[in-house]
Amino acid sequence: MKYISIIGSTGSIGSQTLDVVRSNKDLKVTALAAATSIDLLEKQAREFKPSVVAVYNEQKAEELRVRLADMDIKVYAGMDGLLEVATEKQCSIVVTAIVGMIGIRPTIAAMKAGKDIGLANKETLVTAGHIIMSLTDELGVSIYPIDSEHSAIFQCLQSGNEKDLDSLIITASGGPFRKKTTDELRNVTVEDALKHPNWSMGHKITIDSATLVNKGLEVLEANWLFDVDFDDIHVVVQPKSIIHSMIQYKDGSVIAQMGTPDMKLPIQYALFYPEHRYLEGERLDFAKLKEITFEEPPVDVLKGLPYAYKAGRIGGSMPTVLNAANEKAVALFLDHKIKFLDIYDIIEDAMNAHKVLPNPSLEEVLETEQWVYEHIESR
Amino acid sequence: MKYISIIGSTGSIGSQTLDVVRSNKDLKVTALAAATSIDLLEKQAREFKPSVVAVYNEQKAEELRVRLADMDIKVYAGMDGLLEVATEKQCSIVVTAIVGMIGIRPTIAAMKAGKDIGLANKETLVTAGHIIMSLTDELGVSIYPIDSEHSAIFQCLQSGNEKDLDSLIITASGGPFRKKTTDELRNVTVEDALKHPNWSMGHKITIDSATLVNKGLEVLEANWLFDVDFDDIHVVVQPKSIIHSMIQYKDGSVIAQMGTPDMKLPIQYALFYPEHRYLEGERLDFAKLKEITFEEPPVDVLKGLPYAYKAGRIGGSMPTVLNAANEKAVALFLDHKIKFLDIYDIIEDAMNAHKVLPNPSLEEVLETEQWVYEHIESR
Repeated sequence: MKYISIIGSTGSIGSQTLDVVRSNKDLKVTALAAATSIDLLEKQAREFKPSVVAVYNEQKAEELRVRLADMDIKVYAGMDGLLEVATEKQCSIVVTAIVGMIGIRPTIAAMKAGKDIGLANKETLVTAGHIIMSLTDELGVSIYPIDSEHSAIFQCLQSGNEKDLDSLIITASGGPFRKKTTDELRNVTVEDALKHPNWSMGHKITIDSATLVNKGLEVLEANWLFDVDFDDIHVVVQPKSIIHSMIQYKDGSVIAQMGTPDMKLPIQYALFYPEHRYLEGERLDFAKLKEITFEEPPVDVLKGLPYAYKAGRIGGSMPTVLNAANEKAVALFLDHKIKFLDIYDIIEDAMNAHKVLPNPSLEEVLETEQWVYEHIESR
Repeated sequence: MKYISIIGSTGSIGSQTLDVVRSNKDLKVTALAAATSIDLLEKQAREFKPSVVAVYNEQKAEELRVRLADMDIKVYAGMDGLLEVATEKQCSIVVTAIVGMIGIRPTIAAMKAGKDIGLANKETLVTAGHIIMSLTDELGVSIYPIDSEHSAIFQCLQSGNEKDLDSLIITASGGPFRKKTTDELRNVTVEDALKHPNWSMGHKITIDSATLVNKGLEVLEANWLFDVDFDDIHVVVQPKSIIHSMIQYKDGSVIAQMGTPDMKLPIQYALFYPEHRYLEGERLDFAKLKEITFEEPPVDVLKGLPYAYKAGRIGGSMPTVLNAANEKAVALFLDHKIKFLDIYDIIEDAMNAHKVLPNPSLEEVLETEQWVYEHIESR
C-alpha cells in the first residue's frame, strides 16, 4: 500500500490524482488540502477518508470542520493546515498540486519530513529552485515531476546516463494565439485566451499557455529539475501536443515521450515510478494522426520565453519577479482590468525595476513576491 | 581498450563500423572478414592491422594471402575463416555485418566463444532466432542490434521495465513505391527500385525496402530480439525516417527514438552500450523539419509485411523459407531475370509448397534454404 497526501486536491491535477487513486487499489489517501473549495473537499474527504484535511482559508476551514464533525478526520486551517497535510505521518509522497507560491513552504516541510514530492506546483522550482534542489541531495528525497513536459523529459532520461545528455527539447502547443501578430492581439478577450487547443486546465495556466509564460516557467523548472544549462534547453512548437517533450544525447540520438493529452499518465508515473502501470484511456494511433508538425516559437510576439530565459540567466530573485508579476497580471486580465498585451508590459516593468538578490532565502523570495505585488498596484 | 571483430567489413555497415573505430581511440580491430571484396579488405587490413583476416571465397583468400605477405596478419579462407574471425581470442564483441545465411554459423561460434554480438546480419535471427536466443541465456552473452529500427527499440526499452511493455511500433519509410498501385508496379525497373528515399544501402536491402520484405524481416527479428508477440508488433509508415521506431508502455506512454539517417549512431551505441558517446554529424532540427507524417503500410500492394507475419506466426522453418525465397527472388530481379512483382509470387509459391519443420536444427535450417533454392530453380 502506498500512502499519499495531496495539497490542492480540488483543482484539476488534484482531482485527476484522485482518479488515479480510484483505479489503483494499492493507493491510499492520508491527507487532503485545498485553498477554498470546501464543497468538493468535503465530498473528497467522505469518499477517500483521509485522516487529515486542511483549508488555507481559515473561515472555510471552520465551516468544513463543522460539516465533517461526523467523520474521524482532523480539519486544519491556514498555512499551518497545509503544513499538517504536507507532513502527515503515514504518507510517503506528497502531491503538490496547489497553484501559487503558497505551495513552497508545504513542499519544503514535506521534504524535511522525508516525503518524496509529486511536483505539480510550478512556483516551487521557479522561485525557490535553489533551495529545493539542494534539499533533495541533503535529505535524500526525490522529486517526481507531474507536469506533462517534465514528466516526458524524466521518462526519456530513464533511457540513459546524465553524462551523455546533450540537451532538452521542450514542446509547446503554442496556445490559441501562436499564429497571431502583435496587432491582432491588442484586443483579444479573456474568452479568446481561454480557448486552449489541446488541454483542459485551470484559467491561470490556460492564460499562461496563451502568453507562452507557462512555457517559460517550464524552462525555468527544467533548468532546476534536470540541472541543464539554459543554452541546452530548447523549445519547439508542436501544436497537437502529441510529443510531450524530448531529450537529445551527445550522439545525436533524440528520445521523445508521446501520448494522448491525459494528465493521469504523468500523475500515475510519478506515483508508481519507475513503473508504467496499465492506465485506461485512449492510445495514440499514428496512421490516424497523420502528422506531427513543428514550428519555431513566436518569441517576438508572445514574449513569455525570452522573459523566462532572461530571468533564468540573471537568476537569484529575478525568476520570482517574473512569476509574481505574471501571476498578478493574469489575475488583472482575467478580471478584465487590463488587456492581453499588458501582461507583458507588467512583467517587463517589474523585471526592469527589480534589484536582484543573488541567492535569496525563502523569506526574501516571499518578500520579493510582495514587492512585485505592491510595485504593480502602485503603477 | 575495446577489441572488436567485424564479419562483413567491406559492406556498408562494416565500412561504417570502421568509421566509428577511426573516431574512437579506445576501439581496436582484431579481426576482419569479407565475402569476396579483397581490394577493400586489403586496404582495411593495412590501416587497422588486425591479427586475423578471412575471405569466404577460397580463391580470393589465397590472393589476399599473397598480397598481405609483408604484414603480420593471418589470412584464412572459407567458412573456417569466418569462424576464425568470429572466435578471435582478444575481441569481446563481434559485429556480424555480412549479408545472408552464411552469417549464422559465425554468430553462433562467436557466442559460444563468449563474445557479445553487434547484430547487423538479418538472417541470423529471422531463420535461427530460436537457436540464437536460447544461447544468449545459456551463455550469458548479449546481442546489441545495429539495424536502426531495432537499435531504436533497444534504446527506448532502456527507459523502463520489460513487464510494463505493451507493444512495439516499427517505423517504415515505405520505400520508393509506397504510393503505387499493383498495376503501376508491373513494369518497374531495377533502377526504379534502387531509389531509396532516405538511406544509402546495399542493393539487396534496398530492393527489400521497396517490397517491404525488409520491414517484414525486421518484424521477425523484433519478435526474437525483444520477445514480443506478433500481435504486439505494429508497423507504421513514416516516410522521412526521422522516428527510427517506438515502444508503447501499458500506461499508453510512447517512447520514440529519432535521429538523422546515420547508421554510425546505432553502430556506435551497440559498441559502447549503454553509453551515448559523442558522435560527429548533423543533428535533427525540428522547426526546419516542419513535419513528421504517418501512413498505414500499403499491405495489399507491397506484401512483404503480411508474408512475414504469416511466416512468423507459423514459425519453425517457415521464416527461413520466406527469407531464402526472397533472397533468391531479389537476386533474379537484380539480374533482370524476373519482374518486380514476381518476387512476391516466388515467395508465396515457396511458402505454399513448404512442409514446415516445427523446431529446426541449424542443419535443418540450412537444408530448408537449399530446398527453397532448388524449388525456385525447378520452377
